[in-house]
Amino acid sequence: MEKMYRFAERFDGVGGSEIRKIFGLLGVPGMISFAGGNPSPELFPASTIADISEQVLSDEGRSVLQYGGTMGIPQLIDVLKEKNKGLMKEDDDLIVLSGSSQGIDFLARTMVEKGDVVLAESPSFLGALQTFRLADADVKTVPLCGDGPDIGVLEEKIKQYSPKFFYTIPTFQNPSGITMSAEKRKQVYEMCKRYGVLILEDDPYAELRYEGEPLPSIKSMDDCGLVCKLSSFSKTISPGLRVGYAVANREIIAKFNLLKQGADVHTSNLSQAIVLKFLQRGHYDDHVEMLCNTYKEHRDAMLRAIDMYFPDNIAYTRPQGGLFIWVTLPEEMNARKLFDACVLEKVAFVSGSPFFAEGGHENTLRMNFSMPGLKEIDAGVDRMSKVMRQYEYLTK
Amino acid sequence: MEKMYRFAERFDGVGGSEIRKIFGLLGVPGMISFAGGNPSPELFPASTIADISEQVLSDEGRSVLQYGGTMGIPQLIDVLKEKNKGLMKEDDDLIVLSGSSQGIDFLARTMVEKGDVVLAESPSFLGALQTFRLADADVKTVPLCGDGPDIGVLEEKIKQYSPKFFYTIPTFQNPSGITMSAEKRKQVYEMCKRYGVLILEDDPYAELRYEGEPLPSIKSMDDCGLVCKLSSFSKTISPGLRVGYAVANREIIAKFNLLKQGADVHTSNLSQAIVLKFLQRGHYDDHVEMLCNTYKEHRDAMLRAIDMYFPDNIAYTRPQGGLFIWVTLPEEMNARKLFDACVLEKVAFVSGSPFFAEGGHENTLRMNFSMPGLKEIDAGVDRMSKVMRQYEYLTK
Repeated sequence: MEKMYRFAERFDGVGGSEIRKIFGLLGVPGMISFAGGNPSPELFPASTIADISEQVLSDEGRSVLQYGGTMGIPQLIDVLKEKNKGLMKEDDDLIVLSGSSQGIDFLARTMVEKGDVVLAESPSFLGALQTFRLADADVKTVPLCGDGPDIGVLEEKIKQYSPKFFYTIPTFQNPSGITMSAEKRKQVYEMCKRYGVLILEDDPYAELRYEGEPLPSIKSMDDCGLVCKLSSFSKTISPGLRVGYAVANREIIAKFNLLKQGADVHTSNLSQAIVLKFLQRGHYDDHVEMLCNTYKEHRDAMLRAIDMYFPDNIAYTRPQGGLFIWVTLPEEMNARKLFDACVLEKVAFVSGSPFFAEGGHENTLRMNFSMPGLKEIDAGVDRMSKVMRQYEYLTK
Repeated sequence: MEKMYRFAERFDGVGGSEIRKIFGLLGVPGMISFAGGNPSPELFPASTIADISEQVLSDEGRSVLQYGGTMGIPQLIDVLKEKNKGLMKEDDDLIVLSGSSQGIDFLARTMVEKGDVVLAESPSFLGALQTFRLADADVKTVPLCGDGPDIGVLEEKIKQYSPKFFYTIPTFQNPSGITMSAEKRKQVYEMCKRYGVLILEDDPYAELRYEGEPLPSIKSMDDCGLVCKLSSFSKTISPGLRVGYAVANREIIAKFNLLKQGADVHTSNLSQAIVLKFLQRGHYDDHVEMLCNTYKEHRDAMLRAIDMYFPDNIAYTRPQGGLFIWVTLPEEMNARKLFDACVLEKVAFVSGSPFFAEGGHENTLRMNFSMPGLKEIDAGVDRMSKVMRQYEYLTK
C-alpha cells in the first residue's frame, strides 16, 4: 500500500539495534550466549521484592496506584539525594527516570537542534548512538585508549565541531570494559569546561567493581553545572522495573521535567516504591556485595578460560568490574564471520563494529560474563576457541 | 551563574503546565477540589493488585525483573490484540506504552520536523499541546462544536497548513467533556483521508460511559493505515502503573519501537504483568462496571447541584461519561478571577483558557467529579455558586 504520508527525516538510515536482531538466535536449545548485557536473573532479589510489593500495595495502594509527581516520589528523591550528597552541588537537582536511558534521550532533546554535533566515545553504547541520531544530532567520536578517551582528539573535535555535549561511560564502559583513570577524568572535565561543552556522564556499572579502588565521578569535580550524571538500578536491583535517575544543574533538570511530563508523566510509582523500600530496609549494600562476589567469579572464570583456550594472537581486556570483556582479533579475522561460524557451534557473542559510530573495527567483539553460568562460560569459551583455530577453514 | 551553554530553542516560551502549578494550593485543609483529572483513589483495586503482584514476582520473578522486549510482554500484546480485534486491520500492529501520553510524544517525533503543523481541537489536552511544541511542531487548532470538531474549519486548516496529523480525543473529551458524534467521526476520517492527513485518536475515557450507546472508534473506519489509536489503563485500572498502548499501521509502530528503545527500553515489566493478570483473571469488566456505576453517581450529584445552585446565566455540559463538566460563564466573568475568589472559600477548579492553544476563552472552566466525594461535590458547588453570585463584589 502506498503511504500518503512521510516520516520525519531523522529515521532515514536508522534501522534499530543490530544486537537486538540477533537475540532471536539465542533461544536455540543448547546455545551458550555471551551476547547480552543483562544481569543474571538467578541473582534477582525476587522474593524480597515480592514481599515489598505486596506490603507497599496493601499499605499505600491509594497513593502508589494514583498519578504521581513528574520528578519522582518525594521520599525516593530524598534518599537518592542523600546517596549522592558527595557529588551534588548547591545548584544541582535530581529527577527519577524510567531507566537511565531516558536521561540520554532527555539531554539530547534538551540541547540538540537539527545538525548539532554530539561527541561520543568510540566504541560506545549502541542505544545512545541511536538515540542521538533520532534527536537529529550529528554524532562524532573520540577514540578510547586504555585509560579513557584520547584527550588530544577530544580537544581537536571540540574545536572543530563545537559539540553540544560529550557522552561518556567512564567506568567499566559498554562495550569496551575500559575505565577512565582518575587523571583522565580531571583532564576531560577541564577540557570540556575550557570550551563550555556539557558532559553526559553515564555510570550504570560503577558499583559493580570487583577489585581496585573506586574512582571519583566526573560529576564530583563539577564546579559550574557542566555535568549531567545518570545512574541506574537496572544493573544492581532489576532492569525490569525501569528505575534510574539524573543529577544535574537545576536548569537542566527543569527541562527534563518538561520533557518527562510528555514522555511518561512519571516513572511507575510501584517500581519507584519498590526501589525506595529496598534502599530503606538496608538490602541494597548487601545485595550489591553479593552481586560483586558472584560476578567476580564469572569474570575470573571467563578470563581463566580465555587465557587457557584462546589462540595467542587474540587480545582482550581484563576489566576490574562491569559485565563485559572486549576482544580484539587479528586484523585478518572478521568478527561477523566468526559469529556466524560460532552460532553453528552454539556459542554467541556480539561483534564490535556496530558500537563504532563511524563503522570499521570488524575484528572486535564483546563477551558478557554476567548471564552465563560458570560451566557455560568454560564450555562456551572452549567452543569459540575451536572456531577461532579453524577460522580460515570455517569461513571460506 | 552565567551558563556556558544554550538550551534548544524548542523550550522558549514553554513553562510547564499551568494546571500542575495550582496543585500546591489543593493541599490546604478543607479545600474541595474539582481541579484534578485523577481517578478516585478509593476505587483502586489495591488488594487485588497486591495479590497479583506478589504472585507474579514469586512465580515469574526471573523474567519480570529482567529486561523485556521493547514492544511489550508477548502475552499482554496478545490479550490486547484480542481486545482490539474489532478495529485492528491486517497491516496494523500494537505496542505497549508507558501510559498513552508516550504515544502522543512518539507520533509527534515520528512525523514532525521543525515548523511542521499539528492540528488539535480547541480546547484540548494541555499535556499534548506542550508535547507537540517540544517536538518542534507549530500547533494550529480546530474549534469544537457540541458534536465534535467544526468540519468546515478542519478542511480549511488542512488546506492552509498541510498538517502532519490531526489530534483528537473523540470521546468525553478533556477538558470539554464533548463526544464526537458517529456521523462526525465518519466525516473527520473521510476529510483526513482525502488530504492524506494522519489522525491521532486519543481515547482514554471511552470505557467510562454512564449512559447512551458506545460509538465506533475512528480507527475502526480506517482502511488505509491513517489512524493511530491510543488507549490507556490509567483511567480504568491505575494511573500510577503507567500502562497504555497504541494501535496503528505497522510502519508507524516500527518507528515507535525505535523511539521506545531510547525512551525507556520497555514499559515496567511488573506494571505490564499486573495489567495482564488483571485482564486474564477476568477482573477488568467488573471493575470498569463498578467505576461507571460510581462515577455516574458523582456526575449526577454534580449536575444536580449545579442545576440547583448555579446562577441561570451559567452554561455547562451534561456529559454521558468521562470525568469532566465544562462550564461557560457569561462573557463579563473571568474564570481566573473566579478561581482566586473560590480558593479563598476553599473550592478549586481549573480555568479553561490554558486549554486553548491560541488563548482567549477566559470565561470557561473545567470541573472534575471523579475525585471528590458526593457530599464534597454538593458543598463545593454550593460554595462556587455563592462566589459566582458575589462575583462583582469579590473581584473588584
